[in-house]
Amino acid sequence: MSDNRIRVTVWNEYGDGQKKPPVSDVYPEGLHETIAGFLNKDKGITAKTAVLSDPEQGLSEDALNNTDVLVWWGHMNHHLVEDQNVARVVEHVLRGMGVVFLHSAHISKPFKALLGTSGHLSWREADERTRLWAVNPAHPIAEGVPVNFVIDHEEMYSEPFGIPEPQTTVFISWFQGGNVFRSGVTFQRENGRIFYFQPGHETNPTYHNEVVQRVITNAVKWARPCIRSSGPVSVCPNDQEPLEKL
Amino acid sequence: MSDNRIRVTVWNEYGDGQKKPPVSDVYPEGLHETIAGFLNKDKGITAKTAVLSDPEQGLSEDALNNTDVLVWWGHMNHHLVEDQNVARVVEHVLRGMGVVFLHSAHISKPFKALLGTSGHLSWREADERTRLWAVNPAHPIAEGVPVNFVIDHEEMYSEPFGIPEPQTTVFISWFQGGNVFRSGVTFQRENGRIFYFQPGHETNPTYHNEVVQRVITNAVKWARPCIRSSGPVSVCPNDQEPLEKL
Amino acid sequence: MSDNRIRVTVWNEYGDGQKKPPVSDVYPEGLHETIAGFLNKDKGITAKTAVLSDPEQGLSEDALNNTDVLVWWGHMNHHLVEDQNVARVVEHVLRGMGVVFLHSAHISKPFKALLGTSGHLSWREADERTRLWAVNPAHPIAEGVPVNFVIDHEEMYSEPFGIPEPQTTVFISWFQGGNVFRSGVTFQRENGRIFYFQPGHETNPTYHNEVVQRVITNAVKWARPCIRSSGPVSVCPNDQEPLEKL
Amino acid sequence: MSDNRIRVTVWNEYGDGQKKPPVSDVYPEGLHETIAGFLNKDKGITAKTAVLSDPEQGLSEDALNNTDVLVWWGHMNHHLVEDQNVARVVEHVLRGMGVVFLHSAHISKPFKALLGTSGHLSWREADERTRLWAVNPAHPIAEGVPVNFVIDHEEMYSEPFGIPEPQTTVFISWFQGGNVFRSGVTFQRENGRIFYFQPGHETNPTYHNEVVQRVITNAVKWARPCIRSSGPVSVCPNDQEPLEKL
Repeated sequence: MSDNRIRVTVWNEYGDGQKKPPVSDVYPEGLHETIAGFLNKDKGITAKTAVLSDPEQGLSEDALNNTDVLVWWGHMNHHLVEDQNVARVVEHVLRGMGVVFLHSAHISKPFKALLGTSGHLSWREADERTRLWAVNPAHPIAEGVPVNFVIDHEEMYSEPFGIPEPQTTVFISWFQGGNVFRSGVTFQRENGRIFYFQPGHETNPTYHNEVVQRVITNAVKWARPCIRSSGPVSVCPNDQEPLEKL
Repeated sequence: MSDNRIRVTVWNEYGDGQKKPPVSDVYPEGLHETIAGFLNKDKGITAKTAVLSDPEQGLSEDALNNTDVLVWWGHMNHHLVEDQNVARVVEHVLRGMGVVFLHSAHISKPFKALLGTSGHLSWREADERTRLWAVNPAHPIAEGVPVNFVIDHEEMYSEPFGIPEPQTTVFISWFQGGNVFRSGVTFQRENGRIFYFQPGHETNPTYHNEVVQRVITNAVKWARPCIRSSGPVSVCPNDQEPLEKL
Repeated sequence: MSDNRIRVTVWNEYGDGQKKPPVSDVYPEGLHETIAGFLNKDKGITAKTAVLSDPEQGLSEDALNNTDVLVWWGHMNHHLVEDQNVARVVEHVLRGMGVVFLHSAHISKPFKALLGTSGHLSWREADERTRLWAVNPAHPIAEGVPVNFVIDHEEMYSEPFGIPEPQTTVFISWFQGGNVFRSGVTFQRENGRIFYFQPGHETNPTYHNEVVQRVITNAVKWARPCIRSSGPVSVCPNDQEPLEKL
Repeated sequence: MSDNRIRVTVWNEYGDGQKKPPVSDVYPEGLHETIAGFLNKDKGITAKTAVLSDPEQGLSEDALNNTDVLVWWGHMNHHLVEDQNVARVVEHVLRGMGVVFLHSAHISKPFKALLGTSGHLSWREADERTRLWAVNPAHPIAEGVPVNFVIDHEEMYSEPFGIPEPQTTVFISWFQGGNVFRSGVTFQRENGRIFYFQPGHETNPTYHNEVVQRVITNAVKWARPCIRSSGPVSVCPNDQEPLEKL
């Protein structure tokens, strides 16, 4: 079978708090199902879901081997993700698997391990208005996205944001309360492409917003691996035989 | 004499509009004199001024040879700067002279020639409030600058900003009217360091603001040349003799 | 008709020197025809050619409007390209047209105008061996390209190379005579993507090399516009009406 | 006392292999003492040493609190550095401490944790000749360094190098056997500046080379903290009170 679709796994911690109001009012089957749902509307993508309570926390070798792009949503249970599973995610990203980190994933273990920083920021839950500006409108992740668009109610995340200088800053957010945030940023770690996108507080209907859906769909396509190593990346081979005569 | 101070030339178009109210109310002797004035308070800096009406538009070979860092303010008269003088500025930057572009210099000829882009943006004159956020507080240009600070009245400049991806984004501005802007960005072009800083509309007292003064003073120190070529940069020497045996 | 192929124009100065031996021995119909020839083997690409002696030097508004990616080869006649045509190329790149600069295009007028630097380097014509290393093997331009490959005879280009810090360094070249060179580098200027690739001296059969062909084909695909402005980029619109209440 | 010197700690694993020939022939008191020795010749620097066998492996809270720039040399004993000490080094870098990683430190635990990559490369011990090219001769780390310089005998490290795209590539190395390597690269992680420098195999007298000494001395000065947080970086404060009226 010649299925060339991008295989996405949408991972969500899906803790108890997500299974009752007010979160379940907005995402009755969990944020992961909403996200996988809109991704699956794209004929070039096939998206599955995984949650923390799955065997091997949904991050088995087999699951990652069959994932082109991992989408990660976590907020309250970062500490419950086991280090061996984090290491496996990192290894697969370095081999080539793409990853899209959403919202509170800025302090998830894989985010911090891949970026090498703390991901710190300051925040405010005031359901305030935010405007996202596409500062690099020619980037593939901004394709078809208005130069600026509004989300009426979101959690505020503010600079300074504890990340390395991004490879590309695609979006910067304005917040009603006076803050700004680099809300859409790209990185590469060895073979793997990384995108972080800020919107998506669990009590706001952000992932039902069509522009947000477009951004995440674009990001999945952008993060698709160009190459993928089959073995561990950390091996340093001895090339004892010179290519040119010494 | 062992004067190790940084030699700054503050260049201003200083058109007729600047010589009468409301501009002259705020900057009685011109923006350039205010800027040179606060720079000269730093014992490591010696600042002169130059204006468009000077011989060779204040940009003679001799003037540039004796300038470590050029500070550029222009708004209405970009088109009057002669191309040969622009070429001379560009050449000196490539050889190592630092340059700090202020406010409307985003569409000055040297800015566009050095960055290779149009510098386009959208703008609004509404004297609105702006907040600058130091998104890279560890950058030398942000030293001693609060993580966020307010300018009560400024011209609004908005993304998307027609610049290359900056080497470092130091400041991002929030505007009351809903816009954001990468307001402090660094670039390097061959040996020369470049900083663009957005605040400084001529009818606002922005350059009297001590935090703004600190930023520009820091920028001058950061932009000081590490090396400076004495001859033209565009020469491509023939190294016909190989370093290693062929 | 739903032709979704990338429209490429391969531009070559094609001076008299190229029309006789030794160049014509290697490229009987000109370098541009060889390059267009292998590009046209890719079913996703349709490539035309243009030369300096064409009307409007092959760079008319109409020609550029119908070009998704421009491939540029020039060496001895950079100075003959008229400034108005250079400005038109730059404008189209800023609007979104991709451009691939080959070999001696490092001192072509459009290259220098877009990068803002002189493109200087040192060089040696000794037909020496060069090895290209894919330092970012996961970049789309390196897809299907060996981690290192040899070109037996090439002109040497050496660091320091007068370019801005690249957005991505894809290839670095080793030269037999002791030199290194960042031989495959990417940039973005507003909407337009830029790739520079070093190999391609006119007396060497470099563009007949299948790996080189693969790199240039990849580069064309990578440089395809994501968006393209229909009008001038240099306009700075007045957004006098704030998005949010002042 | 107003001592404004940069406080450097030169850390070396200093395993048994370093205490006997051939290493002790070249570095009788250990690589760390040689490195600290030439750093201390600079009147702006005061350098101490620390080794793996010290209490808390030489990486105590007190030691790091009193270190402006950490220089790290390790090769065979990376695995012996305890994770809690690695975490402490990373935390201090994020707060602002500079770090210079030498040679085999490319797979040390702090290097990998800060960069988020594996640091993989290929290598050859053939005592071959290497040439370092300053590709960014205007960078402070290249100040006073020739545009190219030779080390007669070194271990070969080859691309592809498993690092993120550097903030700045300062040096690229040519190796006699046909390889190239980005041998001097900078990164920033939150407040901390990072420099990696490739030369320095323990059986070669590389750190006795005056140009190498100049590079490392420059790097220490460049990596000096601009700001340094006194507390943990990973805290995400709640700014519940908006700066502007909602």
